[in-house]
Amino acid sequence: MDYNKESLKRHLKFHGKIQIKNKFGKLKTKNDLSVAYTPGVAAVSMLLAQNNIAAYDYSIKGNAVAIVSDGSAVLGLGNIGPYGALPVMEGKALLFKEFGNVDAYPIVLATQDVEEIIKTVKNISPGFGGINLEDISAPRCFEIEERLIKELDIPVFHDDQHGTAVVVLAALINSLKLVKKQKEKIKVVISGAGSAGIAITKLLHQYGVKNIILVDSQGIIHKNRTDLNEVKRKICLTTNPENVVGDLKESLKNADVFIGVSAPNILQPELIKEMSDKPIIFAMANPIPEIMPQLAKKAGAYIIATGRSDFSNQINNALVFPGLFRGVLDNKIKIITDEIKIATAETLANFLKKDELNVNKILPEILDVNVSKAIAQTINNFK
Amino acid sequence: MDYNKESLKRHLKFHGKIQIKNKFGKLKTKNDLSVAYTPGVAAVSMLLAQNNIAAYDYSIKGNAVAIVSDGSAVLGLGNIGPYGALPVMEGKALLFKEFGNVDAYPIVLATQDVEEIIKTVKNISPGFGGINLEDISAPRCFEIEERLIKELDIPVFHDDQHGTAVVVLAALINSLKLVKKQKEKIKVVISGAGSAGIAITKLLHQYGVKNIILVDSQGIIHKNRTDLNEVKRKICLTTNPENVVGDLKESLKNADVFIGVSAPNILQPELIKEMSDKPIIFAMANPIPEIMPQLAKKAGAYIIATGRSDFSNQINNALVFPGLFRGVLDNKIKIITDEIKIATAETLANFLKKDELNVNKILPEILDVNVSKAIAQTINNFK
Repeated sequence: MDYNKESLKRHLKFHGKIQIKNKFGKLKTKNDLSVAYTPGVAAVSMLLAQNNIAAYDYSIKGNAVAIVSDGSAVLGLGNIGPYGALPVMEGKALLFKEFGNVDAYPIVLATQDVEEIIKTVKNISPGFGGINLEDISAPRCFEIEERLIKELDIPVFHDDQHGTAVVVLAALINSLKLVKKQKEKIKVVISGAGSAGIAITKLLHQYGVKNIILVDSQGIIHKNRTDLNEVKRKICLTTNPENVVGDLKESLKNADVFIGVSAPNILQPELIKEMSDKPIIFAMANPIPEIMPQLAKKAGAYIIATGRSDFSNQINNALVFPGLFRGVLDNKIKIITDEIKIATAETLANFLKKDELNVNKILPEILDVNVSKAIAQTINNFK
Repeated sequence: MDYNKESLKRHLKFHGKIQIKNKFGKLKTKNDLSVAYTPGVAAVSMLLAQNNIAAYDYSIKGNAVAIVSDGSAVLGLGNIGPYGALPVMEGKALLFKEFGNVDAYPIVLATQDVEEIIKTVKNISPGFGGINLEDISAPRCFEIEERLIKELDIPVFHDDQHGTAVVVLAALINSLKLVKKQKEKIKVVISGAGSAGIAITKLLHQYGVKNIILVDSQGIIHKNRTDLNEVKRKICLTTNPENVVGDLKESLKNADVFIGVSAPNILQPELIKEMSDKPIIFAMANPIPEIMPQLAKKAGAYIIATGRSDFSNQINNALVFPGLFRGVLDNKIKIITDEIKIATAETLANFLKKDELNVNKILPEILDVNVSKAIAQTINNFK
């Protein structure tokens, strides 16, 4: 199937992917109108005005998530603006509903100014129970998320960072089972120090991985680099413990895991030979991975995963965000902590039974609606 | 039925009134995912990034309306804030969908600052095909609407002003048929110079009513008043041609029509006796009208209408906005002109056939879905 052609055809046919529907029952009589709208609705309005928290139960707020993007880093397409972002955000809204029963609405922004984005999200926040930031470029995304978490009383989650980090951690947990290695003893190389790379690094560190080397387009990130932004400087405190210097090849010597969130084809097959035994390769650049699966296998990769749906081992945030927000909304959780993220990753990994897990199946299927149910259940423990 | 009690009960049961639904077809296979989301969606994103206008056809934009309120003037409840506003905006979204097949989403704001409201609406506008401003207090609403109309390339419509004005004009057109008077020769008193009063005045003037007297809480608005804000000063140019001075009683001498968008019970029965023959009374203060229908009839009113669903002759914007936006979206109309408003009012009035029209039925039923279809059809003429 030509996905591009089919996607254009169907988007034009249906004029997008989501719609608004009644969940209140038919409006057939004047009584129905008087209960849904005036005069009856005034009683609900008065209640919510006096007790804002009741909005969670008496309005859409309790199940509503805004998917907010400024279109500055959409898929692998770059800064294509709000109109380019809209079909992706709609797609997310669709997955939110189908897999998490969350009512998410796409909000694409006409501004890319950090302060304006923060203000706008704060201004529209009263009607939402959570904010999913999406496809906002680094390092702006870090400040926007940090500030919104601090200044809002609803959960704020930048999916490109944390959704990716959680699903990568789940894939890593299962991969380590297969290669029988321990998290404390492995060496992990992460290629790409954008929003995903930074978040993966932080979460793996929290999880207990001791030796992580982060590599950006200029080579290994180490203490003595003078070209680092604040986020990259800070990450030196918890990565590269031996302060290794050099390029990607240098970083990969005796590495157990390569995690790519960077650029197409940058992992030459011969680099895999530098790695330790049973190399684990997550090549997630989209749509063209850091190395193609067949090539990686030939070069000795024991496990190869990508972001694509047309290869086995798809590592995709869609495994995470519907169930995560389901659980967060159900429990009115304000802050999505690292503990919640790690528990989510463990649930996602353990969703596969021992006899289902193998090198070509390290994660459950996105289409399995029970995945999000299991994740939501886990989050009930953090109420 | 106790509407308040029933409304609270049902809002709690359903947790609000609207939800997001799939309109793209089932997500059952990996192919479905690849067409709705990555990688296929990238083709749609690229198209929309290069050709923003295609968003009308390939995304939700073409059928999406933001219902924006800051909660500063909600129903008859006053400044109750965004949480109080939310159930009303949801109710509107429900009516938009049920009667106009428009996908409208409630956006309630954490700010009441004019500049911030304007900026926020502009920032979220790319994903919407229209903006319905709602329950924003006067005179702030005038500037907000005016600026947004000027600065956005999608239609912006403050329903409290123009929705009300259109439905009042329709009611007036039919009432004049019944009393056999001509618009050019009647005297109309409008009580209340807030958003609705000002908009009704302007539209009636555009329609051809020559003698309109506007009355606020301080009495008749005339050129020599020194306490008028800019909007009220300007309205003197097209109202009160004889520069009458005095109170409501003075204004009503020989008036043919009283239109109340002001406060409960301010129209004492004896004032109706000041009016011309066959007095027409639209007493639309909510929930308690300027005069109760029975009292008005007893005092000599020939036609009495209110905003309430439990009396006959309900004058409610819900007769207008679903069909109006349906037509405006269908025809990608950027500015909702007075010509469109007047044509909408005429269509709404003429929807009632001659033998259906009588003093107890001057407008169609809100529940008749053919009303919005007829209005949308009319707007096709303004493409």
